[in-house]
Amino acid sequence: MRYSRLLLPTTKETPNDASLASHIYLIRAGLIQSVGGSGLYNFLPLGKKILDKVRAVVKEELDKAGCQEVSLSFVTPSALWDESGRLEKYGKELLRFKDRKDNDFILGPTHEEMMVNLVRQTVKSYKQLPLNLYQINLKFRDEIRPRFGLMRGREFLMKDGYSFHSSTEDMLREFALMEETYKKIFTRLGLEFRVVEADSGAIGGSGSKEFMVLADSGEDTIVVCNDCEYGANIEAATCQPKVYDTHTACKTVIKKALYDEGKSLCVGFVLPQDAELQETKACNSVDANDLIECDTQQSPSIVVIEETLGAAVDPNAFDAEEINYADIVAVQEGDTCAMCGGALRYTKGIEAGHIFQLGTRYSEPMGTHFLDENGKTQPMVMGTYGIGVSRLLAAIIEQNHDDKGCIWTKESAPFALQIIISNIKDDAQVALGEKLYEAMLSLGVDVLLDDRKDRFGAKMSDYELLGVPHAVVIGKNLSEGKVEFVTRKGMSSIEVDADGILDFLRDTL
Amino acid sequence: MRYSRLLLPTTKETPNDASLASHIYLIRAGLIQSVGGSGLYNFLPLGKKILDKVRAVVKEELDKAGCQEVSLSFVTPSALWDESGRLEKYGKELLRFKDRKDNDFILGPTHEEMMVNLVRQTVKSYKQLPLNLYQINLKFRDEIRPRFGLMRGREFLMKDGYSFHSSTEDMLREFALMEETYKKIFTRLGLEFRVVEADSGAIGGSGSKEFMVLADSGEDTIVVCNDCEYGANIEAATCQPKVYDTHTACKTVIKKALYDEGKSLCVGFVLPQDAELQETKACNSVDANDLIECDTQQSPSIVVIEETLGAAVDPNAFDAEEINYADIVAVQEGDTCAMCGGALRYTKGIEAGHIFQLGTRYSEPMGTHFLDENGKTQPMVMGTYGIGVSRLLAAIIEQNHDDKGCIWTKESAPFALQIIISNIKDDAQVALGEKLYEAMLSLGVDVLLDDRKDRFGAKMSDYELLGVPHAVVIGKNLSEGKVEFVTRKGMSSIEVDADGILDFLRDTL
Repeated sequence: MRYSRLLLPTTKETPNDASLASHIYLIRAGLIQSVGGSGLYNFLPLGKKILDKVRAVVKEELDKAGCQEVSLSFVTPSALWDESGRLEKYGKELLRFKDRKDNDFILGPTHEEMMVNLVRQTVKSYKQLPLNLYQINLKFRDEIRPRFGLMRGREFLMKDGYSFHSSTEDMLREFALMEETYKKIFTRLGLEFRVVEADSGAIGGSGSKEFMVLADSGEDTIVVCNDCEYGANIEAATCQPKVYDTHTACKTVIKKALYDEGKSLCVGFVLPQDAELQETKACNSVDANDLIECDTQQSPSIVVIEETLGAAVDPNAFDAEEINYADIVAVQEGDTCAMCGGALRYTKGIEAGHIFQLGTRYSEPMGTHFLDENGKTQPMVMGTYGIGVSRLLAAIIEQNHDDKGCIWTKESAPFALQIIISNIKDDAQVALGEKLYEAMLSLGVDVLLDDRKDRFGAKMSDYELLGVPHAVVIGKNLSEGKVEFVTRKGMSSIEVDADGILDFLRDTL
Repeated sequence: MRYSRLLLPTTKETPNDASLASHIYLIRAGLIQSVGGSGLYNFLPLGKKILDKVRAVVKEELDKAGCQEVSLSFVTPSALWDESGRLEKYGKELLRFKDRKDNDFILGPTHEEMMVNLVRQTVKSYKQLPLNLYQINLKFRDEIRPRFGLMRGREFLMKDGYSFHSSTEDMLREFALMEETYKKIFTRLGLEFRVVEADSGAIGGSGSKEFMVLADSGEDTIVVCNDCEYGANIEAATCQPKVYDTHTACKTVIKKALYDEGKSLCVGFVLPQDAELQETKACNSVDANDLIECDTQQSPSIVVIEETLGAAVDPNAFDAEEINYADIVAVQEGDTCAMCGGALRYTKGIEAGHIFQLGTRYSEPMGTHFLDENGKTQPMVMGTYGIGVSRLLAAIIEQNHDDKGCIWTKESAPFALQIIISNIKDDAQVALGEKLYEAMLSLGVDVLLDDRKDRFGAKMSDYELLGVPHAVVIGKNLSEGKVEFVTRKGMSSIEVDADGILDFLRDTL
């Protein structure tokens, strides 16, 4: 492609509302454009091209794993969400509207109901299972405070997949296959990431894993092991049990646990003096919707004792209706990994994927059944698998940038190579640039030729901002038979004989 | 792909609400699925695959012509439509809603305002022009009576392109380029079509052309010449002027012309006794919004005389404030082509594309200006170009089907070849089927292997319904060393030596 014909409106101005590197650079490099500052974005030509490359990697790996792509209507009848019970429960992020005939619809923030509805109409027998269907389509979530550019917008592109099985065992097999497939996708995209155990509320256990792209700017705190592959969200992290005895100093943290229909309970959480209560674990331990501060001096009706305290605490010391043991403390940096004995530490991550064992949570209320081998009706067992496709563009930049701009990874880069003609009035430079450009095209290399009339400094700034992995700079030294080969990461450069540059590129790219 | 692993829920049942062949077969072949019968559709795996193939043809040809793909936010702030004046004018097909903060949005039925807004923020100079930007994205139109499946749904996939120019001359050059590009697209898709002059209201003349896929079921009547390429919508069709004299019998048709703000006028249209008033032409001749029946015995304040009547009518015979001449009659079958003298006839077409000379209709009210070579501010001149991408699937079937099912054209077909193993229990049949399947895959042929346990009759019915262009049937005759090569169009078949089938396919496909 020729830069002179491309709409690529780079700018030196940092958008007012942008703090994250990805937000700043995606806009400054002319890849995306905000629509009225309301969490809506247009993808400009190269932003769209990068999005298509990332999307293609996702599709290729899913198709290889036997998944089938469909495309579901974005506008969704509310009646389907009524069936699953989510119409009432889902908060204001669910955008609801009426059509001209006063029928109720929503804009899909996720498509469990639509996919379950698709499958219950078409799949009747165990012979048609397993089935893994996905789409890569628009989603809308009416975020109260859209921010961080593509990281938390309102309209975004998501890959959402749903699998259907005749048994939990088979769902677990597919769950493991999806974990491997997602690893291949993130690896191909050149990302450093961790698969972490995530909190999965009522479903519990290993029912949910998140794919975290490691980046200092990440919103999530994750616990990782220095020595092995262990990783978990802070809400789900565990460590090797510490040994406590009757001399251990303990404390009791009092919370008010909130339940459906305005009910609440006063709960006391007993844990070692030097430990910290992990709110999500604590909340799950009493099956509450939320925990808030307790404003009265009430005595707790339930006491939950940190399970590792064991005999260190005398349960008879509490005057409560119920006494339970559970994992309620936060893993801390320096704690010992339960898998390998290594030291655990905190790091920050961006959630870019999530796989989830759904079980029959949707298939039961929505009547998604099949006939098993004995002719008996059974609810299908489901898994669900998501990747934030447009968010991935932001995650790639968060992990791969410097103070000059983006550094795209090989499979996400808008081009493999940029050829920069320093001075468009120099005939020899133009001739070599054009020759190289045609040669690269005929080799099937995706190449951008900077053939603009601008001055050299502006071209190099734009190169750094856009972040194509490699560039050939055809400059003054051409008169001595030399050109420069630049690598965007680190901005290192080497001099190469102009005569040999084509062979060099053929070997290097 | 293996049929046994594919979600392809074919059915013998015709949907209740379906009358068109495309609607019936797209559903019966398991390609699309209605969502609650409200003009919303899911694309099932093979429907999605066909959609992607059609989309790829559209993208390839546009990119070759120098267009750049972007992706605009589907959810659109109403403020932009307020600027263009369309928020008020557009009827109930425009779906309007509020977000959680009570801000106004619409679901884009078309994206002129969004694209103009994109360009006015990024293009400032004549040096950046011309520019042709397009997207292939969702649209929503809240049709009062969604019907005919993908032909007139509410949510649909559309290619909408917009070009920006520094002069009308340059816009006309691009308009011609888009006409050629669209012809390539429809030709590659294997469609029989006509490019017809369309009514373009106030803009007039050659400002608008439609791409009509010829099909008996088409909603539009078009006038075509038997001898040359001439074609026009009935609203825009012209013919060689007839010669009238003072003996010509005439009639006057009285109509009420409706204007903005509730204004109306009584108009008399004078035309030959045996001619028919063409309502759109008549409406345009008095710059009205609409024409309705006149319920009073008022005398007309404007008289419009069919222009070809000339001296045949004495204008002094009318007591009107204003007397005009205009083309107001409908071209009839048998009229003479103005281009070549051939005979004109009526035919039916499906509008699948529309190109339009917009001028400064949006750039002026929305302040989309550029600095010309003399540093003067000018409004950009625009063109707009649309293709109904999901509608094309229906159009292809309307033109290419028989009483058994779909007959996909080469570039739209879900597969190039289907291999049908008649009896899955016959080891020799299975062995040849598998061998052929692997060989086709390694040659890069997109192939479907019917490896299901079903009986042969059901497999052939599904083959006819789905409509893959060619099939190899491996059946009983394999014991005599023969297989069948079937062509879906006409269901003709020839016997081929099993030993030579691979070479045969290599030469034929």
